[in-house]
Amino acid sequence: MNVAGILLALLLVPAVLFADECIDCHQQETPGAVIQWQQSGHAPANVGCRSCHGDDHEKILQGNARVVAAVCARCHRQAFAEHSASKHGMGLHTGWGCTRNLPGRDQHECRFCHEEGSTLPVSAVMCARFLRQSSEMGQLGCNRCHMVENACGSCHGNHLTDLDIVRDPAVCAKCHMGPDHPQWEMWQTSQHGTLNRVQGRSIGPDCQLCHMPGGSHNVSHGITATPAGQVYPEERYKAERVKMINLCRECHAGSFAEEELAAADAVRSQSKQLVAEAAEIISELHDLGLLDPMPQDRPAHPLRRHELVLDGQMLYEDISHIERLFFTMKKFALAKTYKGAYHQNPAYTHWLGNAELKMLLVDIRSEASRLRERGGERGADERTLEERLTVLQGKFRRGLISQQEYTELKAEMLRKLTR
Amino acid sequence: MNVAGILLALLLVPAVLFADECIDCHQQETPGAVIQWQQSGHAPANVGCRSCHGDDHEKILQGNARVVAAVCARCHRQAFAEHSASKHGMGLHTGWGCTRNLPGRDQHECRFCHEEGSTLPVSAVMCARFLRQSSEMGQLGCNRCHMVENACGSCHGNHLTDLDIVRDPAVCAKCHMGPDHPQWEMWQTSQHGTLNRVQGRSIGPDCQLCHMPGGSHNVSHGITATPAGQVYPEERYKAERVKMINLCRECHAGSFAEEELAAADAVRSQSKQLVAEAAEIISELHDLGLLDPMPQDRPAHPLRRHELVLDGQMLYEDISHIERLFFTMKKFALAKTYKGAYHQNPAYTHWLGNAELKMLLVDIRSEASRLRERGGERGADERTLEERLTVLQGKFRRGLISQQEYTELKAEMLRKLTR
Amino acid sequence: MNVAGILLALLLVPAVLFADECIDCHQQETPGAVIQWQQSGHAPANVGCRSCHGDDHEKILQGNARVVAAVCARCHRQAFAEHSASKHGMGLHTGWGCTRNLPGRDQHECRFCHEEGSTLPVSAVMCARFLRQSSEMGQLGCNRCHMVENACGSCHGNHLTDLDIVRDPAVCAKCHMGPDHPQWEMWQTSQHGTLNRVQGRSIGPDCQLCHMPGGSHNVSHGITATPAGQVYPEERYKAERVKMINLCRECHAGSFAEEELAAADAVRSQSKQLVAEAAEIISELHDLGLLDPMPQDRPAHPLRRHELVLDGQMLYEDISHIERLFFTMKKFALAKTYKGAYHQNPAYTHWLGNAELKMLLVDIRSEASRLRERGGERGADERTLEERLTVLQGKFRRGLISQQEYTELKAEMLRKLTR
Repeated sequence: MNVAGILLALLLVPAVLFADECIDCHQQETPGAVIQWQQSGHAPANVGCRSCHGDDHEKILQGNARVVAAVCARCHRQAFAEHSASKHGMGLHTGWGCTRNLPGRDQHECRFCHEEGSTLPVSAVMCARFLRQSSEMGQLGCNRCHMVENACGSCHGNHLTDLDIVRDPAVCAKCHMGPDHPQWEMWQTSQHGTLNRVQGRSIGPDCQLCHMPGGSHNVSHGITATPAGQVYPEERYKAERVKMINLCRECHAGSFAEEELAAADAVRSQSKQLVAEAAEIISELHDLGLLDPMPQDRPAHPLRRHELVLDGQMLYEDISHIERLFFTMKKFALAKTYKGAYHQNPAYTHWLGNAELKMLLVDIRSEASRLRERGGERGADERTLEERLTVLQGKFRRGLISQQEYTELKAEMLRKLTR
Repeated sequence: MNVAGILLALLLVPAVLFADECIDCHQQETPGAVIQWQQSGHAPANVGCRSCHGDDHEKILQGNARVVAAVCARCHRQAFAEHSASKHGMGLHTGWGCTRNLPGRDQHECRFCHEEGSTLPVSAVMCARFLRQSSEMGQLGCNRCHMVENACGSCHGNHLTDLDIVRDPAVCAKCHMGPDHPQWEMWQTSQHGTLNRVQGRSIGPDCQLCHMPGGSHNVSHGITATPAGQVYPEERYKAERVKMINLCRECHAGSFAEEELAAADAVRSQSKQLVAEAAEIISELHDLGLLDPMPQDRPAHPLRRHELVLDGQMLYEDISHIERLFFTMKKFALAKTYKGAYHQNPAYTHWLGNAELKMLLVDIRSEASRLRERGGERGADERTLEERLTVLQGKFRRGLISQQEYTELKAEMLRKLTR
Repeated sequence: MNVAGILLALLLVPAVLFADECIDCHQQETPGAVIQWQQSGHAPANVGCRSCHGDDHEKILQGNARVVAAVCARCHRQAFAEHSASKHGMGLHTGWGCTRNLPGRDQHECRFCHEEGSTLPVSAVMCARFLRQSSEMGQLGCNRCHMVENACGSCHGNHLTDLDIVRDPAVCAKCHMGPDHPQWEMWQTSQHGTLNRVQGRSIGPDCQLCHMPGGSHNVSHGITATPAGQVYPEERYKAERVKMINLCRECHAGSFAEEELAAADAVRSQSKQLVAEAAEIISELHDLGLLDPMPQDRPAHPLRRHELVLDGQMLYEDISHIERLFFTMKKFALAKTYKGAYHQNPAYTHWLGNAELKMLLVDIRSEASRLRERGGERGADERTLEERLTVLQGKFRRGLISQQEYTELKAEMLRKLTR
């Protein structure tokens, strides 16, 4: 519905029609909601209570008539289409573990979380953690954000339609903050954010200007990786990067922007390497039976039972101390480092990101040393043949060495033994 | 004093009377303070320097004529009464350990910190920590906030009376922030806070709107628990909840508000359960003599000497590593989880709260495992009879089992032995 | 260039001259940059693209014509002189390790980092960490801030000259935030910051008002210690303190300001004492060969090789767990405590500062206990003579005991042995 349409509606519809029998009662019951609707673009356009909430007051009272995205989509088709195709369109799914297990889901949805033809998750937010929460934590902790798929009101508010709300970075802050992805905080104290504070968005670009250019509801515009930081295949990567550079060129030389984003790419891959090193330390300890406690001695993972889980399905409860350090490294410090780099925030990139990553690696190595000594080990040199074969096998299974390397190294070990 | 009173004062009192002999000198000495007073409502009302600071310049110079709440109360009676009856009225006490030990205190004050007829503190901020601080840390760290009881200026500022200052949530931020109770931060990035930023308080409610409705100085309005999270007895709990729901109903359906706050109640009690589990682990280690160091081997607690202290009087210094983990869990992560839930902030409720709680429990269990092994123990199964009796006795002492259960379980243990 | 000069330039230079051949193309290439320049004071003063960027477009394209401070200094002489003499003037150096190793540096620069006649660094930000970073982390993490020496644009922005930008505390936030020196955060939630939010800078002073009084570019005005917290010699200390008190006296009684800052001095020295205690624990463990791993078993420090490094050159990678705890204590918690005290922020001074310092000391003592047991030690009483001599020698080397005390204590030990 455009401005002309609203004006037309204002002229044609007599004011008396706006009076809705709902209003009389709700001016007493929830006066704030009524005032907000009256000040909104919906009121003069004669989009009233019933238009969105329906006629069944009993159902409404039971909380079963929430206004889902499909209701808004009746009028706001393009916005809904863009929204659905973007990362925001997969919001709710990501709070539900594998959607295959849920009733009434389209199998086609698999591609949101999995690379074509693979069961490995591409996104760390396809969330086994949700399955371990109380329903109240799910409601107030997880789904307050992971309902964005299906609730336009989570950004737009419920009874207002004032675009100022969704044009302010604060609207993004509600979810894009905190230890796991503090995009709001890092933008706010970046050069862009500080200029924005003083000079407004024309000088200091905000979330919307770069990530929803031209008012698009496709929040994935110009993003080169999955939410879990897995870089897209080359063609898509390149196409998205060009989109972003074109936005930067509004103010910056293209070559400068390319250099800066390439440096952020390098920071991302260097940081992921530190995380991979930590994962390998823990995997080896697991293969040697040295974790305290081992997965078989703890409550089962809701999807993977007694496997060691270090990927996107990893839990932060009922694990060992060294895994918990890894969780912090991977989920908090990694995100701060590389998202800080893409958002031009030096304190996040370095102190809150890189320094934390490296200090957590120090802690993980130290805890590994303690666990090895506890298990009677004094380092790689003194391992038994069986232990060394186990470690080698693990490296092969995790793809760190090829089939050929595995075969050769194994043969070499056995040869030494029989010498 | 109301607006009409101020206007009357303006008309009747000749301007020349405002000139105070203090002013001539202080326009040189502290010009900012003079200008602030001149712009305040006190100036036209002829409330001058002497009215609040008194006549004794020597005393003022020695810093002994600070303007305490009783001075303001001479005119602002209702505000002072509301303030004194609310949690802000016990601000200073909470920084002083048991007020019984202080000169000139009313014994009736006990009920601020203790349940009737019990010596157990109901509030975690009755603070043994204060007793271990240097006087400078007490001054700049503790009492900058815990003087609110006696210093109206801590919210209102000292020479201004502009109500805009105390109507801005920033005025609350000064104390209600940081790791122990980040109410300001969690509000700021909640739906309420982000709407407030764009649309003002009529759409996005702020601290004052919910906690000081109608300009009341009773900041405890609608709160259902002590500052330490101890839920009030049922009658008071229900009465306070109704007050809060009535505020929510300005915009929200009452049933929705009730559901949301009930979910937050559940998050509070679930989170406290995790903390209780950690406390039990540490208490058992203590009873078995396995803490490193044990309380008897460290500097004495200022109130409880060589007891293990895990309640509101707990210190964060001269304790063992596992107790320090518990302190962080209880004082920081617990508060973030449930206060985040009541303030509708998903990142605090889940990532900064619940996830931290559960990860700290992982760390505590792991450290307990290390301490048990260090003490020669390999788990509950291999404990000696003496150790098992000690553990059982502790559970009874801490109220986890009844007298009857204790007697029966003890008898059962001894029976097995003599079989 | 003053306002009169700008106005003169406006009158004399025909508008047509403003049109620059760069502009035609850059209105397409980087329209935002052109608009910003057009709105700046430089445009009417006929300071065009070439004036700052030069004529060599090839060089510009290669990124070799960045506008360094010397370019701005051609017109803005006084600002540049003040800037160069202040701590901001040593910004870049601090990211480069010892400047002696860099080509084309004036040996006189040594005094920025070293006390006259000493090789000990006076500043913790003379940074060996930089030497261990990837060039991309150096670019996005370190030098985004540590280029302030040479890039006026890091505060002023690049194409605007609007003074509102540099008069907003947000401009300082970009660098003065985060775990190592959160001056922005602590100011923002102090009494000063919260008053500033509501009443502006005349009532609530901001960064610039206290640290750049009268628009001076000398950001070191009134500061009594090096960036690493080393207090200046008495004369300089006193002179700087007087400067700061004079600013406070704008609103506060001088005696009040003196007391407050003296209390902050005490908090600084008490907090440094806690850090010193931790350093001594780690140094002893090192001397006894008990760190895990020992410096000789890890990658070499870029400047100090296999020494134990706990001073300003300390790394946060490839160290032991106990050193990493110390790094956090010294670099994060110490700074929050005392900078929090000087900025009147109780939550930083106490909870984020003092409490963290003391809890990290708990962790360090606990880890020390574990390392001693791991090394076969059970406390100071059971040490061999050789171990006790090593510890004594270390204390002497670190200046904790005098030559005479060392000689006497050593003689006493040997005497006991031969008895």
